[in-house]
Amino acid sequence: MTYKLKGVFMVVNESDFKVEGVKQDYKQIVDAIYKEKVEGISGYFELPYDANEIEDLKKYYKQTPFLQMVQKIAVVGIGGSSLGTKAIKAMLEHKNPTGKELIFFENSDPIDIDKKLQTIDKNNSVILLISKSGSTIETISIFKTIVSHLEIDLNQDTQNIITITDKDSPLDKLAHKHGFKRFEIAKNVGGRFSVLSAVGIVPLFLGGYDVESLLEGAKEEMDKFFAYECEALVNKAIFFTQNKEKYPIHVVFAYSSVLKSFLKWYIQLWGESLGKIDKAGNHVGFTPVGLIGSVDQHSFLQLICDGPQDKIVTFIQIENFENSLKVPEIKLEFLEKTDYINSHSFQTLINSQAKATMQSLKEQNIPVDSIVVENLCEKEIGKLITYYELLTSVSGYLLQIDSYNQPGVEKGKTILRGMFDDR
Amino acid sequence: MTYKLKGVFMVVNESDFKVEGVKQDYKQIVDAIYKEKVEGISGYFELPYDANEIEDLKKYYKQTPFLQMVQKIAVVGIGGSSLGTKAIKAMLEHKNPTGKELIFFENSDPIDIDKKLQTIDKNNSVILLISKSGSTIETISIFKTIVSHLEIDLNQDTQNIITITDKDSPLDKLAHKHGFKRFEIAKNVGGRFSVLSAVGIVPLFLGGYDVESLLEGAKEEMDKFFAYECEALVNKAIFFTQNKEKYPIHVVFAYSSVLKSFLKWYIQLWGESLGKIDKAGNHVGFTPVGLIGSVDQHSFLQLICDGPQDKIVTFIQIENFENSLKVPEIKLEFLEKTDYINSHSFQTLINSQAKATMQSLKEQNIPVDSIVVENLCEKEIGKLITYYELLTSVSGYLLQIDSYNQPGVEKGKTILRGMFDDR
Repeated sequence: MTYKLKGVFMVVNESDFKVEGVKQDYKQIVDAIYKEKVEGISGYFELPYDANEIEDLKKYYKQTPFLQMVQKIAVVGIGGSSLGTKAIKAMLEHKNPTGKELIFFENSDPIDIDKKLQTIDKNNSVILLISKSGSTIETISIFKTIVSHLEIDLNQDTQNIITITDKDSPLDKLAHKHGFKRFEIAKNVGGRFSVLSAVGIVPLFLGGYDVESLLEGAKEEMDKFFAYECEALVNKAIFFTQNKEKYPIHVVFAYSSVLKSFLKWYIQLWGESLGKIDKAGNHVGFTPVGLIGSVDQHSFLQLICDGPQDKIVTFIQIENFENSLKVPEIKLEFLEKTDYINSHSFQTLINSQAKATMQSLKEQNIPVDSIVVENLCEKEIGKLITYYELLTSVSGYLLQIDSYNQPGVEKGKTILRGMFDDR
Repeated sequence: MTYKLKGVFMVVNESDFKVEGVKQDYKQIVDAIYKEKVEGISGYFELPYDANEIEDLKKYYKQTPFLQMVQKIAVVGIGGSSLGTKAIKAMLEHKNPTGKELIFFENSDPIDIDKKLQTIDKNNSVILLISKSGSTIETISIFKTIVSHLEIDLNQDTQNIITITDKDSPLDKLAHKHGFKRFEIAKNVGGRFSVLSAVGIVPLFLGGYDVESLLEGAKEEMDKFFAYECEALVNKAIFFTQNKEKYPIHVVFAYSSVLKSFLKWYIQLWGESLGKIDKAGNHVGFTPVGLIGSVDQHSFLQLICDGPQDKIVTFIQIENFENSLKVPEIKLEFLEKTDYINSHSFQTLINSQAKATMQSLKEQNIPVDSIVVENLCEKEIGKLITYYELLTSVSGYLLQIDSYNQPGVEKGKTILRGMFDDR
């Protein structure tokens, strides 16, 4: 079966993946994911429909003049607590008129923390403490450092701090004790699926982004999926899992610098959700690789073309950059062969590069598909995120694994703790 | 054969790679690479010994008051023309006192170009045009855009422009015609091996970095290698190639945010050099993955642990961050279990995280090794870069490929050109 789906959605899929001998009807697969939704196996399916949180947030914002005034929103969180927010911010900040700045404290790197500490102060910054477990070592350690650096009095300066964490987690209890504003993460929403919960909504709203449109886009994509209108998405997941030995590496080649952080979000979602031991005890999953075009045509493309033929490549393009920058009509002696692009826009150049690269891979029988984002706005981004979350759920279902846990990373934490006990 | 090498070099290797049934003496392999050096198969081996260029550069700098005064150094180049310089700048900028800024124009993304155009002007910026072929489409198109935007008169404003390109390339001819200052890239130095040529030396010198120490470090590592003192490096390459089917993915897990750009440089070097069709017609090479600790412990580690066991992981740590930032001695109610890190430095935390993660992977029989960079300074970085370049040459030799070309990327360029011819 070959599918070709084009122009139907805002997020367009164009692919020549051949799905062979499909045993399950794609509708049965959608039904299985629907079961995950109604049984609450993961709570992310419900996030686009939850308006209560935004209401609560708006109300708190209205009541708190300090929040309206702050220019810096310091997000203290790591992994699923920051990657999604960073991704959305990076895609939209070039057209955000508010001048409010989101600053992300994530890594335990002292150079990084030090540099960011210099950019915030108590009078114009709010600290969003985000941790699902409520006791993430990086997050809490950085929080203590900020408290000390800004001379925050936890009992007085409560308006400087907002927490987003599981109900009754250690951090939630601390917030309750001191009277910080608290938002909850539903127990069944894992970190990497949480960007449309308070985890992403609160910082993005405070940063001046239109979170309602973000959820609206997510809702549209979610509705479509459960109305059996995303056959291409399901077939893509079938193709991935049918070919898991042949193509263990999944490349996403995104043609815009503003998609760098989106790729990091994708890498966590794809790597951590699907990299699991399956019911039969096999190690399964795909290795995600994120590339930026056209830059990485000059760094990674050679490997895709001539190296081991173990990769599937998805191209992401932005159809309309809403930027008219053109290559000027300048002719340079000796460089006449570059003049073919003169008077064309850079948008035309970068999107032509995406198409040309895709075409060249197709001609070498490397499986490719393409996602076209119509333009960079909250609604389109809501769709794109939901598309990838659903693709993850379907792929995990087909791999017969639990896509929503991460049991493999505990050992390192225990060893770390032991290192300090010994001292 | 098991090797363990520790504390001998500034760049330390600690590894448990088991190299079995070695047919070639490691000295014979070093001799084969030495043959590449003396025959000029690649010119990168000679770069650390070339003092002429720095002399020329310093002389020009002294004679040109404008250059001493500029605050912005706009590097216009893509792939090998910028990745190495970006890597070194990112590792050192936190302690650069000059306040001079390196700005990189690479991508054909209009949003990215537009944003950077706003940061430069004719009076305080010098434009470094870097292209090995001298006709890279992104580089020349962006140059035209800068010329137009800054209203540069190519015959008058010659001090605003410096070119770095192959002798007699189209760009070199243009520079000669207009009288721009020109630096050459030796014909046998490929883009991804060119960071220690004028490609990196000129922008880094102008940005205030100590390029002599950079070359000094490179020279030390190079000398050591050809004095047969890098057995660990050679054995690592043997292990990689002996296990190329079992471990096709090579992860570098670098524990500092400032190493992000270094990983991009590594990815190009490793992917593009080794991703080739070998003499027997097989597609060979390794897929490089770059991770930043501790952040990516929260995004990718699960896949390494429980996903397909197809990865080798190299840890890079910075022994001394020269930063004393500590987790303050603050005890928070309910969060007592995070107090074990109180009063320790973040340097201790991040390096302990690296060690704990490495230990947890070892216990799962995932092959790991470790590189410790003593501190972030030009000399250490020169060594690190040379280490990776030599590792690439040895691996390429063992894979029986040409590590220095990139034949696979031409097709896309031809298709791109054709798209515009049709219009």
